[in-house]
Amino acid sequence: MSLSELSVSEKLKIVGEKHSQIYEIMSSNQIDCWIIFTRETETTPDSIMEFVVGNDIVLQSAFIFAIYQNELKKYAIVGSFDANTEKEKGLWDEVIGYGHGIKEHLQDKLKMLNPEKIALDYSLNDVSADGLTHGMYLILEDLLKEYSDRFFSAEPIIRAVRGRKTQTELKLITEACRITEEINSQITAYLRVGMSELEIQSKFYELVEKYNVGYAWKKHQNPMCDAGPDKEFGHVSPQPNSYTKSGYTLHNDFGVKYKGYCSDLQRMWFFGSKEEVPQELRDGIDTIVQAIQLSAEKIKPGVEGWEIDKIARDFIVSKGYKEYMHGLGHPVGIKAHDGGGLMGPLWERYGELPKTQLEEGQVFTLEPSLWTKNYGMIALEEMVMITKTGCKFIVEPAHDFLYID
Amino acid sequence: MSLSELSVSEKLKIVGEKHSQIYEIMSSNQIDCWIIFTRETETTPDSIMEFVVGNDIVLQSAFIFAIYQNELKKYAIVGSFDANTEKEKGLWDEVIGYGHGIKEHLQDKLKMLNPEKIALDYSLNDVSADGLTHGMYLILEDLLKEYSDRFFSAEPIIRAVRGRKTQTELKLITEACRITEEINSQITAYLRVGMSELEIQSKFYELVEKYNVGYAWKKHQNPMCDAGPDKEFGHVSPQPNSYTKSGYTLHNDFGVKYKGYCSDLQRMWFFGSKEEVPQELRDGIDTIVQAIQLSAEKIKPGVEGWEIDKIARDFIVSKGYKEYMHGLGHPVGIKAHDGGGLMGPLWERYGELPKTQLEEGQVFTLEPSLWTKNYGMIALEEMVMITKTGCKFIVEPAHDFLYID
Repeated sequence: MSLSELSVSEKLKIVGEKHSQIYEIMSSNQIDCWIIFTRETETTPDSIMEFVVGNDIVLQSAFIFAIYQNELKKYAIVGSFDANTEKEKGLWDEVIGYGHGIKEHLQDKLKMLNPEKIALDYSLNDVSADGLTHGMYLILEDLLKEYSDRFFSAEPIIRAVRGRKTQTELKLITEACRITEEINSQITAYLRVGMSELEIQSKFYELVEKYNVGYAWKKHQNPMCDAGPDKEFGHVSPQPNSYTKSGYTLHNDFGVKYKGYCSDLQRMWFFGSKEEVPQELRDGIDTIVQAIQLSAEKIKPGVEGWEIDKIARDFIVSKGYKEYMHGLGHPVGIKAHDGGGLMGPLWERYGELPKTQLEEGQVFTLEPSLWTKNYGMIALEEMVMITKTGCKFIVEPAHDFLYID
Repeated sequence: MSLSELSVSEKLKIVGEKHSQIYEIMSSNQIDCWIIFTRETETTPDSIMEFVVGNDIVLQSAFIFAIYQNELKKYAIVGSFDANTEKEKGLWDEVIGYGHGIKEHLQDKLKMLNPEKIALDYSLNDVSADGLTHGMYLILEDLLKEYSDRFFSAEPIIRAVRGRKTQTELKLITEACRITEEINSQITAYLRVGMSELEIQSKFYELVEKYNVGYAWKKHQNPMCDAGPDKEFGHVSPQPNSYTKSGYTLHNDFGVKYKGYCSDLQRMWFFGSKEEVPQELRDGIDTIVQAIQLSAEKIKPGVEGWEIDKIARDFIVSKGYKEYMHGLGHPVGIKAHDGGGLMGPLWERYGELPKTQLEEGQVFTLEPSLWTKNYGMIALEEMVMITKTGCKFIVEPAHDFLYID
């Protein structure tokens, strides 16, 4: 069996760990009721279901988390066909399998709970918190008429549930990063001057298959392989007629999926010895390594994403380079670009996302880049986990080019 | 390469065919503007995109179909990264790749078009027409403030676009059915008394692999294999300790996915010769075959789904059986249970779906069932395509059991 996907029991273990976070997340956000209202999730998935339910459902279903008399209560109201699956998990205080319709069951529960705030899965900014369809919203609004002035976006809950990694999730992400670095190191032994980007990508494919893992994003751009000096990173897939050259670099952006969790790392090779590195490349890579270090030092819970981005951005500009035209880092989880926050500049296209505060347990990339005059782009990408007081690198960060001499 | 998925070029061919249906569908529904408004479709997919766009997109995007001065105009407004992919298709009158935000481009187009009705992808009844998330609805409502009283559900457009099969789609569905019947016929040659359901399912798996196709629904329930007389069809996966018996039946519900399109057929075997069939089973299978024929004879565009269901249901009840506790038939397409209508009874749990009118080009199953006293359930499932004046069976329907003697 492929190591790219989680087994059902592993997934349910993570779901259990997530459930144990929910009381604290809901109470710190002053929300006493969270309803996931969904149907036919194979056609219209609500991505938070992966973390707190763990399987698809068919008929209209409501998964309710409520703080009631200072305790977390958890209810699943599902079509009768789906009820056994929920009961077997042992995660819900009550599972209701309905025959004719969800209406009375849902209304009964709400009447009993009488919550002050009802969080629903919609969000203007965060796509991963926007799993409620508009049709389902209209149905719910009608079912819960008398409560509709208590509806709020569940964005802060979802960001925390998805973002704060559990022990199991951290282990899986760490293993994904470790495998990525092992493959990178086998690539180092393989690389020679005169290879095409496409040829190098094929070698990666061979190793991904050998490790029996999946791809963290689409295979034709994973890894990206960019032979210096002419390519703008991240825009063009590996080419058959672009070759590694002596005295120039090779860049890659590569991530695997290990049991459902992703890595996303960038590394660079130089074709020649450390002593042969031209000053421009030396200054460039040192600037990138330092920018990552400086920004990592300021990461801690409560800081807003844009503040961290600004540290790396300002430092790179202070060294005489143009600023990079992307964000410094994004969350990583079951997707390489996971939802829930951004270390990015306050540009219109990023909306409010860069203003979200960092939280303990989140995993982010740090991936600044810069242009040199004669040697093309330089970039590295690391992954850090946010701790109570700072952050730590998931695997040892790069300090320099890898040398092929 | 597996034959389960469509290639990109085949998918785009179908997208092109769908585009050529849209003018007629929109004008017959008196809707002059249809906007698909979406983002990050890997996380929150809008399933109609598969038919009229054909790929995922990243940033907020609007795909606009508008009847303007009696012509269909088609615009794609996407993030600059996604613009080339859209341009290369040659399907859009204009592709706008924006840098900072979608707002002004979308407002400009609407100002120019000034539509009377704007159809959006939300629906209370049809999950396949409910791809617009509530967060995206709120964004659009804000972007198009002055038009928000012209918003309507795109349900009738989506039902027609998804439901009315193009030439290419029909070919693929027919091929999926043909392969299904070929596999069923190889199973007929393989079956013996004393085999377990699980053993028979494994043989199906072997043949699905040999034909290099995919599964129309989840593998552990595809095929369902039900050895008579004790099983209620459709509820319990094939068992290791349930065996075929002389003088009893085997039922299966089986569908493959061929280049993205599904089959969904039920067949029944009898272990013994035609002459040995007990009267109760003879009456049962004849009733099912007739119920399918009688309902098929009444199918034509404009009839409502419940009317067809009622024909089979009433006929079975008139023969002294209890009515079946499910719908007679559902649409088939890229999913075995595709969206857009239902031949089912007017029960609360089916909502308004059974009241939707049948349309030319739709593909439906016909799958009545009944209980015998001593031999368990009897059911067959056929697939029909609706024509201008009636319907035709996609492959030859079953007229009787298949005999293992």
